[in-house]
Amino acid sequence: MATERQLSRRSLLGAAGAGAVGLTAATAGTAAAVTRTADVCVVGAGLAGLTAARDLVAAGRTVVVLEARDRVGGRVLNLPLAGGGVTEAGGEFIGPTQDRIKALADSLGVATFATYDTGKNLLYKDGRKTPYATDGLLGSVPPIDAAGLANAAIVQATLDDLAKQIPVDAPWTAAKADEWDRQTFETWLRANAVIPSAKFLFDVACTSIFSAEPRELSFLFVLFYIAAAGNASNPGTLERLTETAGGAQELRFVGGSQRVPIKLAATLGDRVVLNSPVRSITKSGSQYVVTADGTTVTARRVVVAVPPPIAARITYDPVLPAARDQLTQRLPMASVGKAIAIYDTPFWRADGLNGQVVSDSGVVSSTFDNSPPDASYGALMGFIEADEARAFDAASEAEVRAAVLKDYATYFGEKAASPSAFVLQRWNNEPYTRGGPVSIAAPGVLTQYGPALRRPVGGIHWAGTETSTYWMGYMDGAVRSGERVAKEVLDVL
Amino acid sequence: MATERQLSRRSLLGAAGAGAVGLTAATAGTAAAVTRTADVCVVGAGLAGLTAARDLVAAGRTVVVLEARDRVGGRVLNLPLAGGGVTEAGGEFIGPTQDRIKALADSLGVATFATYDTGKNLLYKDGRKTPYATDGLLGSVPPIDAAGLANAAIVQATLDDLAKQIPVDAPWTAAKADEWDRQTFETWLRANAVIPSAKFLFDVACTSIFSAEPRELSFLFVLFYIAAAGNASNPGTLERLTETAGGAQELRFVGGSQRVPIKLAATLGDRVVLNSPVRSITKSGSQYVVTADGTTVTARRVVVAVPPPIAARITYDPVLPAARDQLTQRLPMASVGKAIAIYDTPFWRADGLNGQVVSDSGVVSSTFDNSPPDASYGALMGFIEADEARAFDAASEAEVRAAVLKDYATYFGEKAASPSAFVLQRWNNEPYTRGGPVSIAAPGVLTQYGPALRRPVGGIHWAGTETSTYWMGYMDGAVRSGERVAKEVLDVL
Repeated sequence: MATERQLSRRSLLGAAGAGAVGLTAATAGTAAAVTRTADVCVVGAGLAGLTAARDLVAAGRTVVVLEARDRVGGRVLNLPLAGGGVTEAGGEFIGPTQDRIKALADSLGVATFATYDTGKNLLYKDGRKTPYATDGLLGSVPPIDAAGLANAAIVQATLDDLAKQIPVDAPWTAAKADEWDRQTFETWLRANAVIPSAKFLFDVACTSIFSAEPRELSFLFVLFYIAAAGNASNPGTLERLTETAGGAQELRFVGGSQRVPIKLAATLGDRVVLNSPVRSITKSGSQYVVTADGTTVTARRVVVAVPPPIAARITYDPVLPAARDQLTQRLPMASVGKAIAIYDTPFWRADGLNGQVVSDSGVVSSTFDNSPPDASYGALMGFIEADEARAFDAASEAEVRAAVLKDYATYFGEKAASPSAFVLQRWNNEPYTRGGPVSIAAPGVLTQYGPALRRPVGGIHWAGTETSTYWMGYMDGAVRSGERVAKEVLDVL
Repeated sequence: MATERQLSRRSLLGAAGAGAVGLTAATAGTAAAVTRTADVCVVGAGLAGLTAARDLVAAGRTVVVLEARDRVGGRVLNLPLAGGGVTEAGGEFIGPTQDRIKALADSLGVATFATYDTGKNLLYKDGRKTPYATDGLLGSVPPIDAAGLANAAIVQATLDDLAKQIPVDAPWTAAKADEWDRQTFETWLRANAVIPSAKFLFDVACTSIFSAEPRELSFLFVLFYIAAAGNASNPGTLERLTETAGGAQELRFVGGSQRVPIKLAATLGDRVVLNSPVRSITKSGSQYVVTADGTTVTARRVVVAVPPPIAARITYDPVLPAARDQLTQRLPMASVGKAIAIYDTPFWRADGLNGQVVSDSGVVSSTFDNSPPDASYGALMGFIEADEARAFDAASEAEVRAAVLKDYATYFGEKAASPSAFVLQRWNNEPYTRGGPVSIAAPGVLTQYGPALRRPVGGIHWAGTETSTYWMGYMDGAVRSGERVAKEVLDVL
């Protein structure tokens, strides 16, 4: 069996025998093409695809997972640091009610630790820094004017109340779905977050949660996302999306979040084929022929577990129903980057700061202390989101680095300007994701196209965090979608 | 040279010699693959691509046009009628200020005739039919209550006034672009078209113009589209979009609109290669290799002249900049179908009706008299738009026919229930368009991504009606974009 390191960075093909799936030299096409057969072909070796494969294999089905990249994990990615260790360039946090990613990690022996959350948050607004405690009545409430706080509390309560009216498996059936899907979140906020400081808080919350501006989002989609931030026994709340302790940023994985998909892929052995971007899915009698660069898989069922706009780029024959095709034209990826600066120590801790910033300016307006559990070095992680991400997509890495470190120095002092290492990941520029962390829906999309999100098309089934009910957009949603799609396939196979 | 008929329905390859472009048997790949070389490879043989090719050839450049379908014309399509003649299943109308499509048609000897517009329009609302004259102060003003009319007049004037503030070549630079791009057209209409009957008129206008509901559109995009309904000496107006006489539906082409691209393609001879869906565009030194099913073209420049969401499905190597890629994730095709019923005579004319309906219900809420100029038979054409198009995408043709003819009978009497022929074209189901008539922009798209619409990426240039300034979304915009992109390429080649 391949080591974790191998699984993260090179093809598994040839590493071991063909195992339970057929493996023959191709008789046509390019010289290197390989043909395999399986009960199910899974497209995409992110958490969704790998989870689906795990469950299908456990039920005795043969599976081949085709992955475009030279690594598994999709939007979950450890990048190596020059001095050893890794930093997380993709999804990294988990929190309460994210039961399925937690169960998966437990089963693979990947432990969690608390995101560093000791000390004060920092508000940077109108050119002034104000530290503030995180244990307020509403969780972390930045020190804004009383009118703004009162307004924000009402808006937050209203959002949570409205979200309770959303069935997470069919938000388009909510009694007021049509009304909510006619307006942007921006329009709703302007009518409700009428105090500027309150509007500021929700703008920051919006970009932090979605990596999208409030104008890009349907209000119905925002309410659905809040409703989805829970599980069957705990209704979703906005606070669970935004908070560190008690929220979606509460825990991290020891060794980096990508250890979960890497270890999961290791259990699948050579069923996972890297470097194989899928170009077409063609029905042939009762089978599907899935053609990737270098590999062709014939299977009875196909699970497509890649982001919707990426799934749109596969050639389907016969063509997909309009509802599915037009859905994928309407679920663009949001815009996100992560910038991680490495220091000898997490020096901000000595200043009583937890490394978490909320800012009204800069390329980075939201940061976290991303140091390892033993704090053997310090790491500041900043999100580059929405308009800021787009503004810096075409900038050189040196330009982004300079802009980010200027922000870090503003927030944490001059020491922050001179890290020992700097890691930048711009998901908008990634070929097989082209944005992140998640697809977003503008007004009119969920009500008209929502039912096509999970509806299978013949023998083609859909997975990926975008197809999840709870925790859509998170690692937990990806795992849930993989479990759901495996059940769906097993019901008919 | 191939006949028009051949050009409309079968490959040109082999019809004549290779002419000015290289033509050699491919040495690798599938048996039928052909390799060609040219100065410019144009992707898409719609009006935009063909116009670009015409201008490039006229300037002495070698060109190959790769077309996915077995016909030219893209969203412009004549379908044959059983009894002879054709009916138009795609774009068909032209009108004042659409100078470039007019000049192109003139140059090819394709004449125009007036869309039938004699007699009264019909309003169908709240279950009642009301004929009304089309020569009112504001053009065709349906007979609604006085308060609604007054409100509608103010809203219309406001839209025209605001549109005057939009530079058609860069709507995102308008002083209030940011404000207008934060809300849906629905949100703006609710605040301004406050009388229900006025709101109804703009809802119908919206679906008629865009084949999209007001909730799907950025208000900035709507203002841009109005501004674009003109030319350099005549600012765009809403009325020019909605009207028949004096507006964008004023004229039709003798023999059907597809005669224009068919005749244009005929002048290009075997430079146009049908049945060749382009799968990848790969930079190789100073050249680009454009790989289609069956044909590979090596060229110094590439013009991509297909709708943005279709352009997104080509594999680019190197990958496109994020701004361009995320733009194409955010310009979905609207949703449209056309249903044409053929009768022995245009019998509604004898009832004093011009065949144009505005309706608040039915699968078809907007119709035209699509009879040929000699009225040798009668044709009622109805648009199936937006929510209605989506509702009927998956229905059988018989189901759609039944629903459409029920509407036609409601509007024009029982005779309309029994046509001699019925033609249905659902663009949402078309593999190489997947919607229509045009890409639409939700809030936040133009302000963040607009500049990427026409910006070349290395040697790859962008055309298609979506890249036009004036008459974006129309045949005229397609021709303008072809002329613009040819100049752009000639400037550097």
